Amino acid sequence: MMVELNHFDAAGNAVMVDVSQKAPTMREATASGRIHVSAAVLAAIEQGSAAKGDVLGVARVAGIMAVKQTSSLIPLCHPLPIAKAGIEFVIEHESQSVLAACTVKVSGLTGVEMEALTGVSVALLTIYDMCKAIDKRMEITDIRLERKSGGKSGEFQR
Amino acid sequence: MMVELNHFDAAGNAVMVDVSQKAPTMREATASGRIHVSAAVLAAIEQGSAAKGDVLGVARVAGIMAVKQTSSLIPLCHPLPIAKAGIEFVIEHESQSVLAACTVKVSGLTGVEMEALTGVSVALLTIYDMCKAIDKRMEITDIRLERKSGGKSGEFQR
Amino acid sequence: MMVELNHFDAAGNAVMVDVSQKAPTMREATASGRIHVSAAVLAAIEQGSAAKGDVLGVARVAGIMAVKQTSSLIPLCHPLPIAKAGIEFVIEHESQSVLAACTVKVSGLTGVEMEALTGVSVALLTIYDMCKAIDKRMEITDIRLERKSGGKSGEFQR
Amino acid sequence: MMVELNHFDAAGNAVMVDVSQKAPTMREATASGRIHVSAAVLAAIEQGSAAKGDVLGVARVAGIMAVKQTSSLIPLCHPLPIAKAGIEFVIEHESQSVLAACTVKVSGLTGVEMEALTGVSVALLTIYDMCKAIDKRMEITDIRLERKSGGKSGEFQR
Amino acid sequence: MMVELNHFDAAGNAVMVDVSQKAPTMREATASGRIHVSAAVLAAIEQGSAAKGDVLGVARVAGIMAVKQTSSLIPLCHPLPIAKAGIEFVIEHESQSVLAACTVKVSGLTGVEMEALTGVSVALLTIYDMCKAIDKRMEITDIRLERKSGGKSGEFQR
Amino acid sequence: MMVELNHFDAAGNAVMVDVSQKAPTMREATASGRIHVSAAVLAAIEQGSAAKGDVLGVARVAGIMAVKQTSSLIPLCHPLPIAKAGIEFVIEHESQSVLAACTVKVSGLTGVEMEALTGVSVALLTIYDMCKAIDKRMEITDIRLERKSGGKSGEFQR
Repeated sequence: MMVELNHFDAAGNAVMVDVSQKAPTMREATASGRIHVSAAVLAAIEQGSAAKGDVLGVARVAGIMAVKQTSSLIPLCHPLPIAKAGIEFVIEHESQSVLAACTVKVSGLTGVEMEALTGVSVALLTIYDMCKAIDKRMEITDIRLERKSGGKSGEFQR
Repeated sequence: MMVELNHFDAAGNAVMVDVSQKAPTMREATASGRIHVSAAVLAAIEQGSAAKGDVLGVARVAGIMAVKQTSSLIPLCHPLPIAKAGIEFVIEHESQSVLAACTVKVSGLTGVEMEALTGVSVALLTIYDMCKAIDKRMEITDIRLERKSGGKSGEFQR
Repeated sequence: MMVELNHFDAAGNAVMVDVSQKAPTMREATASGRIHVSAAVLAAIEQGSAAKGDVLGVARVAGIMAVKQTSSLIPLCHPLPIAKAGIEFVIEHESQSVLAACTVKVSGLTGVEMEALTGVSVALLTIYDMCKAIDKRMEITDIRLERKSGGKSGEFQR
Repeated sequence: MMVELNHFDAAGNAVMVDVSQKAPTMREATASGRIHVSAAVLAAIEQGSAAKGDVLGVARVAGIMAVKQTSSLIPLCHPLPIAKAGIEFVIEHESQSVLAACTVKVSGLTGVEMEALTGVSVALLTIYDMCKAIDKRMEITDIRLERKSGGKSGEFQR
Repeated sequence: MMVELNHFDAAGNAVMVDVSQKAPTMREATASGRIHVSAAVLAAIEQGSAAKGDVLGVARVAGIMAVKQTSSLIPLCHPLPIAKAGIEFVIEHESQSVLAACTVKVSGLTGVEMEALTGVSVALLTIYDMCKAIDKRMEITDIRLERKSGGKSGEFQR
Repeated sequence: MMVELNHFDAAGNAVMVDVSQKAPTMREATASGRIHVSAAVLAAIEQGSAAKGDVLGVARVAGIMAVKQTSSLIPLCHPLPIAKAGIEFVIEHESQSVLAACTVKVSGLTGVEMEALTGVSVALLTIYDMCKAIDKRMEITDIRLERKSGGKSGEFQR
């Protein structure tokens, strides 16, 4: 089973795997995640988006900047010349949560799944940071890959 | 309600809040989170921990290093002279998941909740990265603050 | 005259000067700067601030994050535990420009003049980046220290 | 008018724009800027360049290193595989200032205007830092794009 | 002789040399280095590799992550899209030392010698850090390029 | 013996050790190292130091900046508010090498040995980078702690 863990060499040592023989292809990935918040936080976020105190605007910038730091944060991740990065938020009243989705594109040797997942994670952590004075019980959940395209493993749709 | 969102000034502009009048106190925070994985991934992780191909060892290093990058990632977070950072993992067979907990300590002007949450997040993202060749449906959930102590708001226990 | 350039030792070599014998004092600095833009850019910025496409919101986040990177960018600058950072913008129609002011506070061994100047610079560069598709002739001017307090050299007011 | 601000999507959200469909072309940009200093500072800088205490040498290294950090500092800037970066200084006695020019080249999907502007800005900030013990009234001005070539918008000459 | 120091222009100013006219070629470099340690440290390292307290595992992750930071650390180094990075350790009882070798690959415009040398250096510094409570007399030696291939200067074998 | 490796907890997991109970004390460390070069390189370096093409000036800036990045590079190193950093070089003709020494000071909870060692290492790597077009056989050796003061373990002199 260990042969499947391709981030280790035959001796079991961690390695940034060799992608030098791959040809660059167009790749895209979307990841999503969610933060559950109190009613007071949800109201504050909504109010801010409409006018002043734009929590989601700050979180979006943080997430996009984090996409570009992915290979510095994740030890065995390859640096990639990111060609696009965007983050969308949806405020969901029924589940009292904010849903985030991050889409990243690149023409490169490896995929951008980790970049999309990192962008979502840091965007949601930023929401936590900005609202934690109101509520410390917020919870970040459902961080997952929604879809990816390009590369040897091809299309993936959750 | 907006007055509670202390990361904005009176005009609604984002601001790194003034903590210069605070006295440094001993602060500690523990955050946790979880990644749900396939049976094959769980087996590979367990096998590696026992011998070669140590997924959790790499994820632990990534999480600890991320703790120190928190104020570079989260826009309005204060830089802090981190005094301790550690990450523990528990493999849970019944829920087919790995639970991560990150504890951070500092003697400083603000708390280390964000550092603990960031450490957990990056540790779990690293597990995702190292195992994604086997399974792309892994899901990161339940990222939350477990407890904190120190500072004006005092003790918090979830 | 060279003795005044305290970033060099007696042999003329660059050095991060020794501040270990200083006691930490409360320090604050405000720097300002300006970007001259076309009428079209000014209109786009104003429109965005009121509703969607918030150029100044993004520039503010960039500036605050840059404050925290100052000692990584300026070779002989000491790392400091920044206690506050904020950026204000004023749109000036008569001069067709945006004025930025960055205020930084710390209780530390050296002042935060460079942090305030770096915050202003990166905020203005971000405005340039976001508007350069409309106008490449924008010009950043008047970056200067407005005031500082604390430390051996005491109060400075321009 | 908002359609021209291409760093926002249709909903007005900041986005790192998609350049994945572009073909890489050779691009070059030169930006310049100036720092006005006191006579004492100018003398110290000139003396250092000739012998010991090389202010401009340190500022040049800082500027070149900052060119490579541009996409980490400017939120919506694409990371680029910089192929060349250089900074030239001219000491101007009549205007009592130091003029800096930064030239950057890349074969890439987007231009290097922001890299050149960032290199100039950090080089000038470094001069300020090294001379501020003599004079706090120095002023950084005239940061602007001098010329660029390559890419869809083609040649620009100020 | 100065013409050979290609990191300076005709005026003697440091410059990141222009590689924009080069075509990308496959390049690989291996660097090695060694840390001499006490018998107690060597025993602790060996014990850890076999079971718990994996000094070399942590050092390997640190070295691989440092490979990706090379162009941020070495002023005139070009950023490169690293395609592979790995670090191997050999414990040598006779010389009472740990030998490290770092291999890096890229398809790029310049070679990866500096990346391999930086990876080795940081891996060895990490071993020093983790063992310095036992022994402060450890010594890092023999950091050198073992071989490189690709690029205009072609094959090099020490 | 494992108890001595204080960067691991009882379960053998890597940890950034808890220094929160320590009181800050004045600490200083000096590390040194050496790069052996060809006669041609030594001549180029000497020539540059006297006039144009200042290899050692660039290497000094790189080393000082690296001192400030130590806790980002070495996984279990604590971030410290560095109070002083300087690097000295001695050109030695008999051994055909350049000797580097880096001294770092801090008032903090842990020592600055790793900062001094990292500063020396990156300064020497920068010399290698700038001279490698002339000679790829340069070798970095003798990186070691020369002395330290302050902290529980007190004075150390090699």
